[in-house]
Amino acid sequence: MRLNDTIVALATPSGAGAIAVIRISGPEAIKIVAPLFKAKSNKNIQDQASHTLHLGNLVHGARILDEVLVSIFHGPRSYTGEHTIEISCHGSSYIQQEIILLLIKKGCRAAEAGEFTLRAFLNGKMDLSQAEAVADLISSENQASHQLAMQQMRGGFSNEIQKLRQELLDFASLIELELDFAEEDVEFANRDEFMSLVAKIQNVLKKLIDSFAVGNVIKNGIPVAIVGEPNVGKSTLLNALLNEERAIVSEIAGTTRDSIEDEISIGGVGFRFIDTAGIRETQDVIEGLGIKRTFEKIAQAQVVIFLLDAEMFNVQGSEFKVEIEKIKNQFPQKPLLVVANKIDNLSDTEILNLTVSLSAVEGSNLIAISAKENIGVEELKNKLLEFVNLGELRNNNAIVTNSRHYNALLSALEEINQVQEGLNNNLSGDLLAIDIRQALYHFGEITGEVTNDELLGNIFANFCIGK
Amino acid sequence: MRLNDTIVALATPSGAGAIAVIRISGPEAIKIVAPLFKAKSNKNIQDQASHTLHLGNLVHGARILDEVLVSIFHGPRSYTGEHTIEISCHGSSYIQQEIILLLIKKGCRAAEAGEFTLRAFLNGKMDLSQAEAVADLISSENQASHQLAMQQMRGGFSNEIQKLRQELLDFASLIELELDFAEEDVEFANRDEFMSLVAKIQNVLKKLIDSFAVGNVIKNGIPVAIVGEPNVGKSTLLNALLNEERAIVSEIAGTTRDSIEDEISIGGVGFRFIDTAGIRETQDVIEGLGIKRTFEKIAQAQVVIFLLDAEMFNVQGSEFKVEIEKIKNQFPQKPLLVVANKIDNLSDTEILNLTVSLSAVEGSNLIAISAKENIGVEELKNKLLEFVNLGELRNNNAIVTNSRHYNALLSALEEINQVQEGLNNNLSGDLLAIDIRQALYHFGEITGEVTNDELLGNIFANFCIGK
Repeated sequence: MRLNDTIVALATPSGAGAIAVIRISGPEAIKIVAPLFKAKSNKNIQDQASHTLHLGNLVHGARILDEVLVSIFHGPRSYTGEHTIEISCHGSSYIQQEIILLLIKKGCRAAEAGEFTLRAFLNGKMDLSQAEAVADLISSENQASHQLAMQQMRGGFSNEIQKLRQELLDFASLIELELDFAEEDVEFANRDEFMSLVAKIQNVLKKLIDSFAVGNVIKNGIPVAIVGEPNVGKSTLLNALLNEERAIVSEIAGTTRDSIEDEISIGGVGFRFIDTAGIRETQDVIEGLGIKRTFEKIAQAQVVIFLLDAEMFNVQGSEFKVEIEKIKNQFPQKPLLVVANKIDNLSDTEILNLTVSLSAVEGSNLIAISAKENIGVEELKNKLLEFVNLGELRNNNAIVTNSRHYNALLSALEEINQVQEGLNNNLSGDLLAIDIRQALYHFGEITGEVTNDELLGNIFANFCIGK
Repeated sequence: MRLNDTIVALATPSGAGAIAVIRISGPEAIKIVAPLFKAKSNKNIQDQASHTLHLGNLVHGARILDEVLVSIFHGPRSYTGEHTIEISCHGSSYIQQEIILLLIKKGCRAAEAGEFTLRAFLNGKMDLSQAEAVADLISSENQASHQLAMQQMRGGFSNEIQKLRQELLDFASLIELELDFAEEDVEFANRDEFMSLVAKIQNVLKKLIDSFAVGNVIKNGIPVAIVGEPNVGKSTLLNALLNEERAIVSEIAGTTRDSIEDEISIGGVGFRFIDTAGIRETQDVIEGLGIKRTFEKIAQAQVVIFLLDAEMFNVQGSEFKVEIEKIKNQFPQKPLLVVANKIDNLSDTEILNLTVSLSAVEGSNLIAISAKENIGVEELKNKLLEFVNLGELRNNNAIVTNSRHYNALLSALEEINQVQEGLNNNLSGDLLAIDIRQALYHFGEITGEVTNDELLGNIFANFCIGK
């Protein structure tokens, strides 16, 4: 981990906008920018106070690159804890590039993904789970995932882990102290108190581990595959759900080749819909590749919407049940929502018959809609929401969203169970101490007390550059 | 034009990034944000100095929306000339949206396209042609267009226009003064001096008008259509030019349906390449639509690259010339570059023969390449650059890039020619004055001395929101 150089990156999304922000952090940040910046006030930014803004031109020799606004932050009063400059320039990709290239020429290094936040962590501005929450916060696309990320960034369950870790550490010290007095057979650590601490820790860990199922789904959006035969209106349904013309729709069966994904928020929860190529025998090579991909997408989905053409599906009573069972058997492992589309093509009587047939099948999620006319789409959304248990989120409980934390918690629980077993068996202090240390290690992995370059590399590689 | 309300918009490109900036401008900007912002320092931003930065939480009731950095600008020391707040928040689309919605709830209005710059113009922070240059600057994607926009934003030719306008205005005043003394038959305005001023203005106007041909091409990128029969490698050439896998390439003729466009910068000049569907008879409806679009694209292009399969094109000598003439006749109005592709499939002798044939056709732009193996692609780029006359840009002359300015300059020249004619015919002062006033009006249109709501509406509607 090099901390002695000065890094630069674009901090705003790439592409054209009114303005863009380029962030520079490191010991030389102010010194590198100063000679390139001609303030309107003629002041040198090296003499200016922290947390001040300055308008002027960014120049490269005689050439004016842009009129910019420069923000100055003196370390440690910055995001990274280091001297930091933010250059707010005009939002053209060309200008952004030119400015970054100039800064690199003058001694900056292009920042790696997440390197600003890595520096914030290494400089003690936040713990590891808070740093990870920054990435979650940026990628949050709905209220639920935003709430979770904010909670985690403000400490979240890592405060709780920290507290338990401290209590466990205290016991560990006492037990290790006993080892120094081994021949005198004393017990500094009260075994009953220790037992109840272990039970408490087990409780907390189990609760957190259980919360991951919800947390994971909230963070990543619930993948929902829309499947069915060609031309039943899968792309039309996707467009209706997204409320935009996302997928190309035509009367020609097999129009969709690539699978199209997009996310919307329903009741504050993210759902990721996957429009797939219709499943049928085909000679078309490209369409064939699309159908192969469909089956991969179904495997990834947490919910499957099976779309039927309501017109084609006019069997009744027990026959209807048999048909539904057939469809259900195709997706034995997945929550399935069977949707009859195109009811706009049916007469009122036919719709009535269909509704009766639908309601007669118990324990199944069946629904009749017209994606084209936007009939029943809201009902479909509500059905989807029922698949998610949001109780834990609503009760403001700590929720684990990060699979790294989840794995550390699982490992910690395993060790704590060992400790408990040891206590029950009156295991000697030296053996107990080993398991306790292991549990402490896994707690430390979450907050970053225990870490190494490889772990940090993995975590921050998932960040975007500029954060 | 409402200037008494406070406007808000996202100023950075939409999408996820490390940070995003939300800009608020208007009389209530600071007052609206203050109660929503809890500074870490506990200071109230209403009491803080201009050009300072403050870290804290943006809150909505009890809910923390985000940890943000707030920049304060007191009018008139801001971009718009009004009180301005910039909120630098985490770059999630969800957070951006929530913050903007909150600000609208608290009394801001969603800004219209270009409204911040419109306010800057109305508050006298810049003239109209400078304001227009802001939009050009943001959309500049290469050195040439960036240089033009910067030049214009810093005054550019509008300074020159302003100066001529002032001189003309002085003469107009003198001539109008003569009218008050009409019965005494005096001449306050020296006719000889006036004649030479008119000649000078004509010169400047003509030069600026001529520069538009170059300026327009530099600003918008030179559209280059890549055409040819199916499977000659048009998409492969596009990818080679762009140096990325932009278009899907397959062995199957007719793979490209939609025409794909992308821009690259060659020698600092933007070229917009258009990959088109191969031209052939087809029964495929979707491919047919693509071919129809190809002909539309050719009509828009300024340069046509006609791509051939080198293997298929093995005629020699006079036959070769005849074939080339045939192709040229298909595009009578367009600069044409005939490119023989796939020379990697030819033997050395065949390549030699092809080269001889190519060089034997005079006055034609012919070139042999292999897009797949990236042979001759650089030579092709250099050929394209020869199509553009960049002399005027290189000599740092003022260049007109804006068709609105171009039209105003044309109208001004017409009026000035009238004035000249009037002077030659010893026209009376009152008639001269009318033509002079008309010329002044067109000069004023460029810089914004003469303006109206409709004109401003048209100009700023082309801006992005947030600028």
